[in-house]
Amino acid sequence: MPHIELPAGFPGISAGFQFRLETAKPMRELAHILLHLPNSLTPGERELIASHVSSRNNCHFCYSSHSAAAACHLGDVSLVAKVKADFTTAPISEKLKALLAIAGKVQQDGKLVTPADVEAARREGATDMEIHDTVLIAAAFSMFNRYVDGLGTWQPDNPEMYAQMGQHLAKEGYTQPSMRQPVSADA
Amino acid sequence: MPHIELPAGFPGISAGFQFRLETAKPMRELAHILLHLPNSLTPGERELIASHVSSRNNCHFCYSSHSAAAACHLGDVSLVAKVKADFTTAPISEKLKALLAIAGKVQQDGKLVTPADVEAARREGATDMEIHDTVLIAAAFSMFNRYVDGLGTWQPDNPEMYAQMGQHLAKEGYTQPSMRQPVSADA
Repeated sequence: MPHIELPAGFPGISAGFQFRLETAKPMRELAHILLHLPNSLTPGERELIASHVSSRNNCHFCYSSHSAAAACHLGDVSLVAKVKADFTTAPISEKLKALLAIAGKVQQDGKLVTPADVEAARREGATDMEIHDTVLIAAAFSMFNRYVDGLGTWQPDNPEMYAQMGQHLAKEGYTQPSMRQPVSADA
Repeated sequence: MPHIELPAGFPGISAGFQFRLETAKPMRELAHILLHLPNSLTPGERELIASHVSSRNNCHFCYSSHSAAAACHLGDVSLVAKVKADFTTAPISEKLKALLAIAGKVQQDGKLVTPADVEAARREGATDMEIHDTVLIAAAFSMFNRYVDGLGTWQPDNPEMYAQMGQHLAKEGYTQPSMRQPVSADA
């Protein structure tokens, strides 16, 4: 039950975005730049960072939607589950493991990131921009997760809904709403 | 010592903003809407919420700059210190106390906000928009604080620098840089 009168039938962050379009715009733009526009980390890798942070914050809506977007980019649903279970043993690059370790620290507190964490990422080939973006993706999802949960938004359980949302996000990115119309409350 | 090669002489978040102008733009716009543009909560009240969250995250740069902006708006430096020491006994409205309580929960985890917290704010006259913005300010500073700390930015101690920054922010808002030129490293 949402804490305020959010538009009915819009799940998770889409309800907050519909409630206040002015703040939705820069939040959408930030997500689009960080996760979707071309960069040296692939969109799939960046969605995995977003999914990892959302998992650690126990944000069901963000974890489910960004895991679905990651799975769509990577063409592999099981990989996302393996990263969630234990990213240190998942079949991903050593560079991405080092970046996920940094993201996990930022999720708790930015001050926990050490020069050794950053050096470990650099040793695996991470650039300054990739380290910057990892810190900012983790910081941004510390915002998105709290926004979704702090408003008490409706977070459906239906995996099919998240799979469709993930496909939309992977294809179109974040500047256009994936939910233009309210969906049924039994989703 | 910053974890990546940030432009020298730019303190705190301004270094991250200079490093990547694309992501700076939506982050600045979000802060400008949430803290500066006219709304039913005054800019001074909203800066107090930002300062409160930054204090709880121990982010020296954000706490100092937004406390200075709040003091400038409110015309009272001692009030900001009283809110930091114990907002429940500070000479502020009961509505703002109820909103600060919500912000403090979002700072930890959005899921901690209860219907009773929201009802308490409503009883003191808080609107849905004010509750929404309180949640989002607290969520946004969960991002800004982690970005500033997670990059290991330079965070000067000089109170005079923060006082000047606070004056600039209170007057101009967030869409234009307060730091156009690097400042001396002994600031």
